[in-house]
Amino acid sequence: MTGLGAGPEFDLIRRFLRRRPGDPATPPRGLRLGPGDDCAMIAGDGIAVTVDMSVENIHFRRAWLSPEEIGWRAAVAGLSDLAAVAARPIGVLASIALPDGDEGETGERVSMGIAAAAEEVGAAVIGGDLVRSPGPLVVDIVALGETSAPVLRSGARAGDELWVTGYLGTAAAAVDAWLRGEEPDATARAAFARPRPRIAHAIWLAERSVPSAMLDLSDGIAGDAGHLAAASGVRVVVEADSLPLSGAAAAREDPLRLAAAGGEDYELCFTCRPGAAAEVRRAFENRFGIPLTRVGRVVEGEGVVVVDERGGPLELRAFQHWVERA
Amino acid sequence: MTGLGAGPEFDLIRRFLRRRPGDPATPPRGLRLGPGDDCAMIAGDGIAVTVDMSVENIHFRRAWLSPEEIGWRAAVAGLSDLAAVAARPIGVLASIALPDGDEGETGERVSMGIAAAAEEVGAAVIGGDLVRSPGPLVVDIVALGETSAPVLRSGARAGDELWVTGYLGTAAAAVDAWLRGEEPDATARAAFARPRPRIAHAIWLAERSVPSAMLDLSDGIAGDAGHLAAASGVRVVVEADSLPLSGAAAAREDPLRLAAAGGEDYELCFTCRPGAAAEVRRAFENRFGIPLTRVGRVVEGEGVVVVDERGGPLELRAFQHWVERA
Repeated sequence: MTGLGAGPEFDLIRRFLRRRPGDPATPPRGLRLGPGDDCAMIAGDGIAVTVDMSVENIHFRRAWLSPEEIGWRAAVAGLSDLAAVAARPIGVLASIALPDGDEGETGERVSMGIAAAAEEVGAAVIGGDLVRSPGPLVVDIVALGETSAPVLRSGARAGDELWVTGYLGTAAAAVDAWLRGEEPDATARAAFARPRPRIAHAIWLAERSVPSAMLDLSDGIAGDAGHLAAASGVRVVVEADSLPLSGAAAAREDPLRLAAAGGEDYELCFTCRPGAAAEVRRAFENRFGIPLTRVGRVVEGEGVVVVDERGGPLELRAFQHWVERA
Repeated sequence: MTGLGAGPEFDLIRRFLRRRPGDPATPPRGLRLGPGDDCAMIAGDGIAVTVDMSVENIHFRRAWLSPEEIGWRAAVAGLSDLAAVAARPIGVLASIALPDGDEGETGERVSMGIAAAAEEVGAAVIGGDLVRSPGPLVVDIVALGETSAPVLRSGARAGDELWVTGYLGTAAAAVDAWLRGEEPDATARAAFARPRPRIAHAIWLAERSVPSAMLDLSDGIAGDAGHLAAASGVRVVVEADSLPLSGAAAAREDPLRLAAAGGEDYELCFTCRPGAAAEVRRAFENRFGIPLTRVGRVVEGEGVVVVDERGGPLELRAFQHWVERA
C-alpha cells in the first residue's frame, strides 16, 4: 500500500480505510492487521487469493452506474472468485486509478461501494492503493478468503451433471437495453449494478460435498464452462432449453444468447455426480430463494458445446464486452 | 482471476502463467495452488499482503522504459512493501490493462518483466487478470509474503535513531535528467528501471531485532518518514547532511532535493534503539555491499522535519509525480 501522508489524495484513502478495522463487532477470522501499514496481515491454512480489474468504458460506463455501483460491481467481481472455490471472505484490497477531478467525491463514493460489497459478505477492507489516472477510472480488487477444501475447476468427470444457481442473462439484459438506447428493466439493472456474490450458496453446497468442480459465471456459461472443461480434461454439454432464463432476459429479443453467452451474472456453475444436486435442490431453494437448475452434462472429450432440444449444436458467439460491439 | 478460455487475450495469460507453478526447483513456502483456477491458494500463520498500482504517464513513460522494465518496476513497487515488513515473498498476482495493439508482444514482455522480478526474490506468479484499456497501460501488483513477526511502522519511540539502506536520489536523478531532455546516467537509469527490493536486507535486520519501525522509500524520505511518525505517534528529524547521496544524484543540480524528496529508490528506512544499527553496520555492509547510514532521530511530537547542519528546518516540497511537474 502506498503511504498515508499529507494531501487530499491521502485524506481520501484515510476516509476509505478508517472504516476498518475495528469496525465490525466480529473481525473476519484470519485477519491479523488491517490497513495503515505497508502490508495487511492475515493467517490461515488455506488462503484463497484472486484479483479482478474493472476498467471504465470496457467493463462499465459511468452513464449506467453511480460511483457506488461502480465500486460495488468491481468488488463483487473479485469476491465472486472466492465463491467459485467456496472460500469464506476475509478481506479485500482495492487499487483505484482516478481521473483528475474524481479524487474527491467520486473516489470516495466508489470506495464506499467497495466497502459496502465487502461488508455484505463479512470481509474487511484491509488495504489499497490510490493513484491518478490520465485516462479511465480503473478499479482493481484483491479478494482474500479462507477454505480448507477449495472446490477447484479440475474435479469434473465424464458422467457428471452440470448445474447453475439462480437465473442467467439478467445482467446481460440490462446491457442489451442500454446499448439499444432503452432504459433497462429494474431487475436487470439491479443484476448488473448490484450483483450478489454467491458466497453462502457455494459454502452451503461445498459443505454437502455436492460440487465436483465449480466456477463463477462472469463471461457467460458458453465460455466459462470451457475453463472447467479444460481444467478437468472433459467435454461440457450445455442444454440450451434448460438454461434458467430470468423474466428480464426472456423479455429481450435474443434471450438464449443473453443467458448462454451473457456474462456478469456471477452465478455459480458446477458439476456433480449424478443425483447429488437433485438431492439437495429443494433444501437449497428453500434456504436461498433462488433456483438450482440442471443445465447440462459432462462427457468424454474436450471443449464446450451448447445444444438445442434435439441435441444439435448451436452457434453462440461469445458475448464480447459491449464496448467492442457498441 | 478471469478465466482462461479461447482467444488471443487468454493465450497471453496462458503464456504468462504457464511459467509457474512447478517451474521452480523449490516452490515458495506457503504456496498451495498456483494459477489456473478461480483463486490461488496459499497458507501461513502470518501472510503479508499488499497492492501497488502503476499507471502509464503517471508512474512511468514508455519512452523511458522497455516493456520488461515497466513490468519489473511495477512488480518491485509491490514486492518492496513486503521488504518493508520483513516478509519473505510467496507470490505475486498481476492485473494488467493493455491498450489496443499491446495485447501481443508488449503485454507478454510486461508480463515477463513481472515474472523476472518475482523470481529474483523467490516468488511465484500465482494469478492475475488481463483486460483491455481504452487509455493508459496499467499494471497492478499484489504481493504476498510470510513473516511471523512483521516489522510495523508503529514501533518508533522518542530517542530512537533513523537509518536508511543504500543511496538516495538515484532513481530521481534519472527522472530529473529525462525531464530536462537529457540521457540519464547509466546507474541512475538502472535504479529507476530495475530497482531491487530490499527483501534479504530487511529480513537480515529483522532477524537481528534491529528495526523498531520500518517502511520502504517510494515517495522520498521527507514524505515517507511522515507515515512512520504518524503511525508511531512521534516526530522524525531527518538530518539533510547525513543523507547518503549517490554519485548520480550528487552530479545533478539539486542533489539534496533528489535525495530527500525523490521517490522510488525502494530503500529501507527504519528506526532503532540507540546503537542497535551501528553494532551491525559493518556486517550488513560486508554482507550486502551497500551502505547503512544514520540519517536522523526520533523525538517527541509529530510530523517530519528535514534540518540542515545547524538544525534549521529546510523547506522541501514533496517530490510530486513528475507528470504533474512536466
